[in-house]
Amino acid sequence: MNITLNDLRKAYSRVRPFVVNTPVVSNTYLDHLFDAQFFFKSEQFQPVGAFKIRGAANFAMKLSDAERAKGLVTHSSGNHAQAVAYMANRLGIKATVVMPNNSNKVKIANAKKWGATVILCEPTIEDRLAVSERITRETSAIMVPPFDHEWIIEGQATAAMELIGEVQDLDIIITPLGGGGLLSGTALAAHYLNPNIAVIGAEPENAADGFEGFNSGIRVTSFTPNTIADGLRTTVGQYPFAYIKQLVKDIWLAKEDAIVDSMKDYWSNTKHIIEPSCAVPMATFSQHKESLKGKKVGVIITGGNVDFTNLPF
Amino acid sequence: MNITLNDLRKAYSRVRPFVVNTPVVSNTYLDHLFDAQFFFKSEQFQPVGAFKIRGAANFAMKLSDAERAKGLVTHSSGNHAQAVAYMANRLGIKATVVMPNNSNKVKIANAKKWGATVILCEPTIEDRLAVSERITRETSAIMVPPFDHEWIIEGQATAAMELIGEVQDLDIIITPLGGGGLLSGTALAAHYLNPNIAVIGAEPENAADGFEGFNSGIRVTSFTPNTIADGLRTTVGQYPFAYIKQLVKDIWLAKEDAIVDSMKDYWSNTKHIIEPSCAVPMATFSQHKESLKGKKVGVIITGGNVDFTNLPF
Repeated sequence: MNITLNDLRKAYSRVRPFVVNTPVVSNTYLDHLFDAQFFFKSEQFQPVGAFKIRGAANFAMKLSDAERAKGLVTHSSGNHAQAVAYMANRLGIKATVVMPNNSNKVKIANAKKWGATVILCEPTIEDRLAVSERITRETSAIMVPPFDHEWIIEGQATAAMELIGEVQDLDIIITPLGGGGLLSGTALAAHYLNPNIAVIGAEPENAADGFEGFNSGIRVTSFTPNTIADGLRTTVGQYPFAYIKQLVKDIWLAKEDAIVDSMKDYWSNTKHIIEPSCAVPMATFSQHKESLKGKKVGVIITGGNVDFTNLPF
Repeated sequence: MNITLNDLRKAYSRVRPFVVNTPVVSNTYLDHLFDAQFFFKSEQFQPVGAFKIRGAANFAMKLSDAERAKGLVTHSSGNHAQAVAYMANRLGIKATVVMPNNSNKVKIANAKKWGATVILCEPTIEDRLAVSERITRETSAIMVPPFDHEWIIEGQATAAMELIGEVQDLDIIITPLGGGGLLSGTALAAHYLNPNIAVIGAEPENAADGFEGFNSGIRVTSFTPNTIADGLRTTVGQYPFAYIKQLVKDIWLAKEDAIVDSMKDYWSNTKHIIEPSCAVPMATFSQHKESLKGKKVGVIITGGNVDFTNLPF
């Protein structure tokens, strides 16, 4: 394992000044429905409204002062863009973010709010990479990858580190699966801190490249996901994939209408705002009742940046 | 003063088994905007999603066992109906609730969810009273008034009691003003626990019967409010009015578009769901900057029961 427990601990110290130890909340309605005990690590309460601040902070703080001074560049469907913009703002450096032209408007506006230059591209992973690589060449700014880098994985792992530290004896942790930074980081945290925990990824059926790669053993590299879960419109990266293949127990799939219903139910029952992506784990539950029954289940709520003028319900 | 400090303390013991000591949350965006320190007592996290459980619980628990066994009846534009339905459910007794036919659908559905019989009426205070009095006569059930009763006022006071106990040296507490149960209870709590606190009511311009009565000294008894703030579509009751006239510092008015904007901003900045009624205090702030500057300001967030299919933004 390339990333060690010591790496995770150092990452935690590095990100601590920039992140909130977000609350873990319960949901008696879901507990009752599935005869389980759920613990929602509520990352929508981070300063940028999403867990992505963790990876971006770890990456930015691992750079040398000279590197940081060159500015940051990234590509992202939204929350990572905001996180990089926020970190650049906190550190007093420049940021350029490449966002797919079908990105959530609120996420685009938030990236601009933190002073970043936003450049729109086609909604494919190929175009995102091409445009952001061109900018890196032209400006010599440092690329902060959204997920496919071990520094990002280390940073994202810190959410599960807090969750595992706070809730004793979890049986399962479920996270959404997009690029795989959060899921691989979570799997690493569980591996080192409590290997009894089964780590599971939840992915939309309409963006099931991770599911396909996990089951075939061969990563899917070209795919244009089309899902309401805008944070998951990407394919799994090579670094995350290697850890996911080795450490993750299973990938569960969610139907689009179940994602929408689960999001609405969560809003109604908790009065907490979550993005469609966060509802993907809950949207898989009714197909996995037996696996959940009687278990202590952690779920990472990834963000709350919703375009209220364009709700799916 | 008819309601004493001892009455409030006893009410607190009475409601404690049924209510959550809800969190007090901050909002750095608003703090920065108004150069003040805000403390939001977040009653949307009560079991019925609103503070109304406090008054309903105090009322129900002050009844004798024989009275309670007759069942409960009430009229309400929504959250009080849910609260009475919830209490009846907890106590194993029957509830009938009369709701205006323009009530929020989610509030109607929730009242039914707790097993209450729902009867729709015209959206005027006269028809609400007429229909609910008829039911009381026919069934001999006990009427639980939504606001115009001292037991209800005592119960609603418990939210401010918790807030004042938790946040030292508040300068101001602002609550929405509809029927006046919450505002009068809050004013009583401040009067007994910290009389230095200025208690202010916030009312929609389109439902300004409270403002008019406060300023003329004569309660407005007939008025058909028409506001997006569905929890405030009512006129101030006689018992609340007497305490408000004596103990409240001022009534501030909110425009409809400011209510909508304030609600949306609160959702975006905190990721907490609040009803339009809760946004009425924030919608008055820009007209009262000088009064807020440098102050510690408590705001009671009254509920989070929103019809997501019918958002005002």
